[in-house]
Amino acid sequence: MKKGTFIVFEGGEGSGKDTQIELLKKELPDAVFTKEPGGTKFGLEMRRLLLEWKDGEIDPLAELFFFSAARVHFMKEVVRPALATGKTVVANRFALSTIAYQVYGRQRPDLLTLAQEVTKKVVGDEMPDMTILLDISPEEGIKRVEKRDDGKTRFDAESLAFHARVLEGYLKHIADFGPHAVIDASRSVEEVWEEVKKVLESIR
Amino acid sequence: MKKGTFIVFEGGEGSGKDTQIELLKKELPDAVFTKEPGGTKFGLEMRRLLLEWKDGEIDPLAELFFFSAARVHFMKEVVRPALATGKTVVANRFALSTIAYQVYGRQRPDLLTLAQEVTKKVVGDEMPDMTILLDISPEEGIKRVEKRDDGKTRFDAESLAFHARVLEGYLKHIADFGPHAVIDASRSVEEVWEEVKKVLESIR
Repeated sequence: MKKGTFIVFEGGEGSGKDTQIELLKKELPDAVFTKEPGGTKFGLEMRRLLLEWKDGEIDPLAELFFFSAARVHFMKEVVRPALATGKTVVANRFALSTIAYQVYGRQRPDLLTLAQEVTKKVVGDEMPDMTILLDISPEEGIKRVEKRDDGKTRFDAESLAFHARVLEGYLKHIADFGPHAVIDASRSVEEVWEEVKKVLESIR
Repeated sequence: MKKGTFIVFEGGEGSGKDTQIELLKKELPDAVFTKEPGGTKFGLEMRRLLLEWKDGEIDPLAELFFFSAARVHFMKEVVRPALATGKTVVANRFALSTIAYQVYGRQRPDLLTLAQEVTKKVVGDEMPDMTILLDISPEEGIKRVEKRDDGKTRFDAESLAFHARVLEGYLKHIADFGPHAVIDASRSVEEVWEEVKKVLESIR
């Protein structure tokens, strides 16, 4: 079934995912570029509801289900159809984010097994061909985010310790998602971009 | 932890849950009466989004996650606090509905195991003390719903075969949820109510 190439960018706040993906767009004009959970109408509604929710804390288990629900439609409406026609799909965040944020960030190790089972069911045979983790220290990442005027979400307000746990989760579980690369994202945009290109050439 | 009594009413469209619960309200004025997925602010938003969704079919797996996310908050904000103070909680639908509708109604037997694991995680130690299934044939249930002017949801439009599968799921899995009773709901409101009272007396 799967024919195209599925590339995922992961990384904490301020790691430079958007910037690198913008550069990649010029390189791969025919690829499908998409962002979870907003890549579908259903996901957009959920993104709005979840990330803008101000009415008390959302339980990490509910978050896990929520992102997973959006991901089901993301796979069905965006990823699978594009891969089936042989297109390259580039996703800004994917299932690894759920493990990093909901299990590690929110300190719910009891949810790890369920999160993994849920992922297996949702992703099915369409595992990424390459997951690129833009690795940046939480201190540096938050510094970058604080300079932004827009695009802040609920997560940006979380503590440094939260982001350190997210990074720990990323590093511990990136190998669960198949082929992957960890790129030191504390360097300049150009240096990181050179690394990204090298990694993507390796799977051509 | 759990001290109060947790009573759940289940049943297909037109089985008379609302009517029986209204009667029970007069009997148990101090109990907490609640309805999934709208029993919390979070759940209300999700109910709105999910049941009023008109933009194409929602995948059964996404529905499963969606209702489960609402249920996490339902347990946390409504059921657990009330039970902890010794109150009786009466719920209009609970986790058995997810199995009946998303797994059986939507013909996704491959989701059964995941649905059961998700339920276990979400419900935890707060299993119902009594689940009452109002058992009505889909033909009769739909006939009753069609007489209503309001309260129609996306599910009411489903086929007779769908509702027959839902009933099959209800009957097959009601025992998974602990103490339960199946009441023939094709009879008059008064006759059903007498049965409901008998069942509830049995767990006092």
